[in-house]
Amino acid sequence: MDDRPIGVFDSGIGGLTVLKEIMEQLPGEDIVYFGDTARIPYGTRSKETVIKYFFQSVRFLLTKEIKAIVVACNTASALAMEEAQKVFDIPILGVIEPGAKAAVSATKNSVIGVIGTEGTINSQSYQRKIRKMSPSAEIIGIPCPLFVPIVEEGWENTDVAFITAKKYLLELKEHNIDSLVLGCTHYPALRYTINKVLGDKVTMVNPAYETAKAGKIMLKEKKLLSNRLDGGKCDYYVSDDPEKFKRIGGNILRREIASVQKVNIENL
Amino acid sequence: MDDRPIGVFDSGIGGLTVLKEIMEQLPGEDIVYFGDTARIPYGTRSKETVIKYFFQSVRFLLTKEIKAIVVACNTASALAMEEAQKVFDIPILGVIEPGAKAAVSATKNSVIGVIGTEGTINSQSYQRKIRKMSPSAEIIGIPCPLFVPIVEEGWENTDVAFITAKKYLLELKEHNIDSLVLGCTHYPALRYTINKVLGDKVTMVNPAYETAKAGKIMLKEKKLLSNRLDGGKCDYYVSDDPEKFKRIGGNILRREIASVQKVNIENL
Repeated sequence: MDDRPIGVFDSGIGGLTVLKEIMEQLPGEDIVYFGDTARIPYGTRSKETVIKYFFQSVRFLLTKEIKAIVVACNTASALAMEEAQKVFDIPILGVIEPGAKAAVSATKNSVIGVIGTEGTINSQSYQRKIRKMSPSAEIIGIPCPLFVPIVEEGWENTDVAFITAKKYLLELKEHNIDSLVLGCTHYPALRYTINKVLGDKVTMVNPAYETAKAGKIMLKEKKLLSNRLDGGKCDYYVSDDPEKFKRIGGNILRREIASVQKVNIENL
Repeated sequence: MDDRPIGVFDSGIGGLTVLKEIMEQLPGEDIVYFGDTARIPYGTRSKETVIKYFFQSVRFLLTKEIKAIVVACNTASALAMEEAQKVFDIPILGVIEPGAKAAVSATKNSVIGVIGTEGTINSQSYQRKIRKMSPSAEIIGIPCPLFVPIVEEGWENTDVAFITAKKYLLELKEHNIDSLVLGCTHYPALRYTINKVLGDKVTMVNPAYETAKAGKIMLKEKKLLSNRLDGGKCDYYVSDDPEKFKRIGGNILRREIASVQKVNIENL
């Protein structure tokens, strides 16, 4: 039994969808959340830069005496996980493996779609993980760079979202996928629009949910679970304006974020 | 006469539209360009963070023995110009004042629209400058956060761009504006789509063009013009992957970018 907090980090605010799932599935755990809001988004950055930002985030969380790290950002998980696991001793869980596993379980015709940022899709991380678990699967990855700004604009159920989704998802429809990984923390907000485009036969996989589930299993196996059953608290840190994070983040979490501290992440 | 280079910086790649205008209007000048591609976009960041990034960019350019600085980024000009002019001795020109001036010249009915990032519009920088020159003008500022990703996706002349523009620009149309500041370096790429929405009676102002013109006047007044009439060269620096910058930047400039160096901007 271990009452130290879990560290969770993301390129910004989207990772709160993962945090929310962790809070629901592990209500007794304390958490330290870091959102790199001064350098969001990671999705279009080079691997080298994402590795640097990932390592800085880990180094910050390590100052908070955490017992494990959950990487809530798909791009960071896709581009920097292997390097980080070589360098840091602490258990680190990303969203890719749990998301890939759920897609393989969900598919019946072995035709799986993956959508995410440019960085996530081009890294082939989801594709490689899925292929490892299901070598004969046909996997179609499509980067959807407009989805994040559409969600951030609050336009997820508008005609702009629908036409954009039709453009991006056409190829997935033509390939007759039956399961789809929503490989970016913002995308579950678009699930109704995506469903309108792809129809009810496509099962959508939300890696946020799967990652919280996998996190619980990992902590249990490593005997790192807290012995508290609820009452866990969360401390929030960001690299840009705390006020904006409080406002938007509170909406995502559906609970008030009382206090957020700013971190100078660049010097870590 | 002064043959030292002009420093130009931007949050990334959009500032190349300003650079292109400077190269055309001042073909004899050497230029050092810095694009902060590791931290793009500035448009949603806090004032404090943009000031920090602005100062780091200036400090980098100062290591290159420049004679003046042109800030090609609207958000940086809007949020950090006043602070920078207090701190640094070198002449610094932003895009806001030249853009505002051109809008005031262009309008006949004194109803002026300004579009830009959240940071630019909420800072009220264009609005204040315009009001100073034309106190009775009615000014309507609208942030258009989806325009940058639409242009970066190459979708500027699609139905997605058109419907998005209709949503954003409706209020400008209702107010019967007759001139519009395209207050973000990416927006001139959308001019045909914007024209389809607003019609031919609205004159669009491109601050990139106006800034190059103002830069020429400033250098002349301060006796800082080079005595060369052409053959100026440009050195490129970025904070993320040089290859991506070369590829996309070459398209914007319509000339090959032979060499780009990476800078560790965070430590400056």
